[in-house]
Amino acid sequence: MVKLNDNFFKLKESYLFSTTARKIREYSAAFPDKPVIRMGIGDVTIPLIPEVADAIAEAGKGMATKEGFHGYGDEQGAAFLQDAIAAYYLRKDGVALKRQEIFISDGAKSDVANFTDLFSDDNVIVIPDPVYPVYLDSNMMLGRKIVFIDGNRENGFLPMPYEGLEGDIVYLCSPNNPTGAVYNREQLKTWVDFANKNGMIILFDAAYECFIGDETLPHSIFEIEGARKCAVEFCSLSKTAGFTGTRCGYTIVPEELVIDGHSLNKMWLRRQTTKYNGTSYVVQKGAEVVFTEKGMAECMKNIAYYKENAKIMAKTLDELGIWYSGGVNSPYIWFECGMDSWQFFDMLLNEIQVAGTPGSGFGKCGEGYFRLTAFNTHENTLEAMKRFKKLLAK
Amino acid sequence: MVKLNDNFFKLKESYLFSTTARKIREYSAAFPDKPVIRMGIGDVTIPLIPEVADAIAEAGKGMATKEGFHGYGDEQGAAFLQDAIAAYYLRKDGVALKRQEIFISDGAKSDVANFTDLFSDDNVIVIPDPVYPVYLDSNMMLGRKIVFIDGNRENGFLPMPYEGLEGDIVYLCSPNNPTGAVYNREQLKTWVDFANKNGMIILFDAAYECFIGDETLPHSIFEIEGARKCAVEFCSLSKTAGFTGTRCGYTIVPEELVIDGHSLNKMWLRRQTTKYNGTSYVVQKGAEVVFTEKGMAECMKNIAYYKENAKIMAKTLDELGIWYSGGVNSPYIWFECGMDSWQFFDMLLNEIQVAGTPGSGFGKCGEGYFRLTAFNTHENTLEAMKRFKKLLAK
Repeated sequence: MVKLNDNFFKLKESYLFSTTARKIREYSAAFPDKPVIRMGIGDVTIPLIPEVADAIAEAGKGMATKEGFHGYGDEQGAAFLQDAIAAYYLRKDGVALKRQEIFISDGAKSDVANFTDLFSDDNVIVIPDPVYPVYLDSNMMLGRKIVFIDGNRENGFLPMPYEGLEGDIVYLCSPNNPTGAVYNREQLKTWVDFANKNGMIILFDAAYECFIGDETLPHSIFEIEGARKCAVEFCSLSKTAGFTGTRCGYTIVPEELVIDGHSLNKMWLRRQTTKYNGTSYVVQKGAEVVFTEKGMAECMKNIAYYKENAKIMAKTLDELGIWYSGGVNSPYIWFECGMDSWQFFDMLLNEIQVAGTPGSGFGKCGEGYFRLTAFNTHENTLEAMKRFKKLLAK
Repeated sequence: MVKLNDNFFKLKESYLFSTTARKIREYSAAFPDKPVIRMGIGDVTIPLIPEVADAIAEAGKGMATKEGFHGYGDEQGAAFLQDAIAAYYLRKDGVALKRQEIFISDGAKSDVANFTDLFSDDNVIVIPDPVYPVYLDSNMMLGRKIVFIDGNRENGFLPMPYEGLEGDIVYLCSPNNPTGAVYNREQLKTWVDFANKNGMIILFDAAYECFIGDETLPHSIFEIEGARKCAVEFCSLSKTAGFTGTRCGYTIVPEELVIDGHSLNKMWLRRQTTKYNGTSYVVQKGAEVVFTEKGMAECMKNIAYYKENAKIMAKTLDELGIWYSGGVNSPYIWFECGMDSWQFFDMLLNEIQVAGTPGSGFGKCGEGYFRLTAFNTHENTLEAMKRFKKLLAK
């Protein structure tokens, strides 16, 4: 008689963004004449840059020809894309990576969730609160013990390790989703030293690294000395290049990451060759263009556009005297909403047709806070803020 | 101190096809003037049909426009593709599926390996031997108890359930990889009845269904009465439409599949929304065309081409008086090689530059057997068989 994994039943019935999407869908069905301005999920709105779309189209077209057809590729990814990413890291951060340290995937979400396959289920997992819900949900599915480290106004939503912190694997997300807070070099160095001293692994989610404008802030954990012995980095083209629907991400597993004589790089390769079959060739051809100097310069123009939206939101919150974080080196703005965050979600949706994300969806420390994203047009962002100001000024 | 998942160290150091690929790579590097004819991994060689490539190219091109851009889609897949697959099943097998029973993925390999996330690790897994190695490896990674059911000449490599068979979850692969054997309706009905009687789940891998020419044989387990209460079906566009490098598959989880009051469909949705972010939009647009009547008719021409290769191989084996299975309703031919199968692999590679796959890589019952695939050109298949005949006649 088959037995279910009953850890599933400890989860909330649906994933956070499935719940908000359902609520928006239901509202739109009931009030089709009241279009909703979506500033909820972190989905981009600006089309792919033409160079990337052209590369995908050309690769797609070529797949019907003898010369351009590509069957199974390496599960780890195409060498041309690994090399393009390595060149990008060297240029951007001065970080040198070997080709075989870079694993291409269909997105950071899959990798972040799957990477812990390499670890025993009796590890203690350290998760910042609030944070991207995949870390918690994917570990709850495995029945793992979770320890939360609290983010709050006092620590600027950047929790730090402390003497006596019990845990084996820690997730860090910087720039943080949802708070937009970014660890500086000194703070990351403290985390890396703590991990190396205590035999801890850092799973570093750098999905929003492209939004960092402040040159003193690190984009990659591998800018920090000692990180190659304790950290894995996840990144994505979703926010960097608008790939939310195109799907491509990558994971960096340094060769120095060795536990009890076992290379995590080799273990991840074994996992990926067994349970994954590589990223679509046509998508990888598009991704390659993102990492050229010209491609990245074009992508950064789109990011600048989104950051302008963040400024519009920040200005409104300033005018209303509301405390917030993020909005500078991040596409997210995170503010005190002064009430239950799901109630605030319903209020914004019903009264001004603006969809955001309730803070409590990211953890208990998120209660009383709310997230808005900069991934919309200037026009919609301005309109949303006009309505927001009118509503909140009441 | 982080603890590794030491189930990994019980696995062979590398995945079967990584090992054969390495051996071929090494041979080709040492003897660049001796090109290898690849009849090893099941990788297709005929380009995508133009209609599919055009759809991918058009969707890719459109991603640079406001109207054609697509961000996050449903994790479960695009409705247009779910509906196209449902129409295909109805047309082909008379099987009616609901949209929400069909989950689109980046390929059957990921889904086959990930689906058991829904089950407790203390289930007993029943695996046919020989078979596609992902079933075994992915369950070994979870430390699960495995029971093998033997395939051999006596049962035509189609193991059946028997009184006292202990197990909770069984994988069936039909047409079988590597043996090419196909369960008939009566045999599948026996499996379905056994599963329903014993509270067992059947994970049915139909990746090669398109190769079935014999109209009396079932393509889908859902053609069998009672299967909607005990079975999940995995399928892929890799072999159907040459998508090995394009990446798209799908998994069917019927709504009637309920264990202890829990819907497996809802559990898989929760798993996919948490750990997967949907299949590339451009790939789904290409996949949609595959399932049109015209698209499928074109794809079937390519399959007919491969089946012609299988006939060429079968003829050679007949002439040599070698026992084999497959080659009719399958792209694989599976034959007695009369020696250690890795030794035979090395012999074919070194002496006649033909790459196949050693039977023992698919399980202990595969020892003494060898797999060749029909996924090459007629010219190469004829040339390989000429060399093969000369070598074996010695």
